[in-house]
Amino acid sequence: MNDAAAQPDFSKGAAWVRGRYVPIADATIPLTDWGFLRSDATYDVVTVWDGAFFRLDAHLQRFAASCAHFRLNPGRSNEELAEVLTQCVRLSGLKRAYVEMIVTRGQPSWGSRDPREAVNQFYAFAVPYVWIANEAQRERGLHLRISDVPRIPSSSVDARAKNYHWHDLTQGLLGALDEGADTVVLGDGAGHIVEGPGFNVFAVDAAGAIVTPSSGILEGITRRTVIEIAQTLGLALQQRALPAAELRAAREVFITSSAGGVLPVTQVDGRPVGDGRIGAVTRRVTQTYWDWHKDPRYSRAVDYMAGA
Amino acid sequence: MNDAAAQPDFSKGAAWVRGRYVPIADATIPLTDWGFLRSDATYDVVTVWDGAFFRLDAHLQRFAASCAHFRLNPGRSNEELAEVLTQCVRLSGLKRAYVEMIVTRGQPSWGSRDPREAVNQFYAFAVPYVWIANEAQRERGLHLRISDVPRIPSSSVDARAKNYHWHDLTQGLLGALDEGADTVVLGDGAGHIVEGPGFNVFAVDAAGAIVTPSSGILEGITRRTVIEIAQTLGLALQQRALPAAELRAAREVFITSSAGGVLPVTQVDGRPVGDGRIGAVTRRVTQTYWDWHKDPRYSRAVDYMAGA
Repeated sequence: MNDAAAQPDFSKGAAWVRGRYVPIADATIPLTDWGFLRSDATYDVVTVWDGAFFRLDAHLQRFAASCAHFRLNPGRSNEELAEVLTQCVRLSGLKRAYVEMIVTRGQPSWGSRDPREAVNQFYAFAVPYVWIANEAQRERGLHLRISDVPRIPSSSVDARAKNYHWHDLTQGLLGALDEGADTVVLGDGAGHIVEGPGFNVFAVDAAGAIVTPSSGILEGITRRTVIEIAQTLGLALQQRALPAAELRAAREVFITSSAGGVLPVTQVDGRPVGDGRIGAVTRRVTQTYWDWHKDPRYSRAVDYMAGA
Repeated sequence: MNDAAAQPDFSKGAAWVRGRYVPIADATIPLTDWGFLRSDATYDVVTVWDGAFFRLDAHLQRFAASCAHFRLNPGRSNEELAEVLTQCVRLSGLKRAYVEMIVTRGQPSWGSRDPREAVNQFYAFAVPYVWIANEAQRERGLHLRISDVPRIPSSSVDARAKNYHWHDLTQGLLGALDEGADTVVLGDGAGHIVEGPGFNVFAVDAAGAIVTPSSGILEGITRRTVIEIAQTLGLALQQRALPAAELRAAREVFITSSAGGVLPVTQVDGRPVGDGRIGAVTRRVTQTYWDWHKDPRYSRAVDYMAGA
């Protein structure tokens, strides 16, 4: 009775693992799940800010598209998924959270090599909000390296279907960190910028026009939000191939991610971007990004009391 | 006391998980290990046949090379690794086993994005021997499809460093299975054959000469064994680019994997290979492959009693 009577501690995060809610420290997947042994999985990340999900519907839609691409099935409707995510947040009590939903292939009966025979598995967790850039980096701007490692091409693994194939990003990141940079962006092997580990990239030219890569990328929800912000603010924005030289010559550079929103970049390959300070366009877009978190068109409050 | 007194059942396999041996059904990794969330891991697979490891040293050497490539550290010497693998086999009692060793990134302190701050984790397991082809397929030969999906190029993720980035292989495999084939081989996007899900490919031409792709592949230990067998038997063998057309026109085709050794292919893209029956070169190489399992140069007996 002693163990059963002890209250689980969800304060560091809560997870949904094969049918039950557990503290994040106890959340595991079987070693033999192909989600691990073949990285045969897809996922999405949505955030909670000041007690409300931001663009939950957009994330659930993209998750459904990723699942369809890889022929993975979470086995529940979007509303049921939303309820599991909400319960993870509720149990954790977190008002600012990083919330991940995952489907893995599971595994077929032992010896079978047929993915169609596997029972797919749904996992989810809510943990404290994650920032790609720490507070000091957000104040001075990130120092970015352009890696020589080309991003896995979408012809092999479609970047639009969110996946854990990150060895290229990780190898690029290690190289950038070794050189003293904060983070990295990868190219397409033909001189164009693609994306970084968990983020999209934007360059602002001398005329104030914004450019962001259009292919070979995960189409981030934060990226989409910035595109909509630019429309709302009347800023010119192009989605097209972005040559590395253009990024190096940009007046402003910023990156976008659910893990931190809009984040300034003030150095590329060791050289200052523009005058080396966070630019006006970046500041304006960042401000609007956070303003929109209070807008009921995009936010959905978590009811922390329900089911308690 | 009841649970503690129950004997764990290792008969379906045994695993080493963060410091202890557990039945395979209880083997898990934390959901938050980057080995899962970023597929930031490397691995190797060695087999046990009739109570002896086959080419264990070669697998441990390749594992060390893969670890170095990804800057992952198993935290123990090759002899210590061998002892953990042996103990997994010993506990399972399996005389024919599929034995996997894994290092994952682990995870840095929460919020850090720096892989260098993570404590890498070593995992291992032994389960019953796995065959890429079931018994019926081994008797009639495998039916293979050449996929349109190009394998992830080694410029992005070096295929020589064994990794779990399999979405391209899995998507190709699903397409092949849907078309009624048994398995799939991927190309390099430029008309050359590369590799399949867990195996290398060999074509035998009308003159009896063997060809196997030389780049963009995992350099399999079974592949290496076949190259050595060809030398021993005086068979011509070339390692070079293998055009898809050459595979389709081959007189014999076989694949190699630790999961089954040398396996015959009797159809490619729905057409018979040669006369549609398993060829003489394939049979000779297969026979020698299994003969070498009894050769003390390559085999290392498991002491099933030690530590019992």
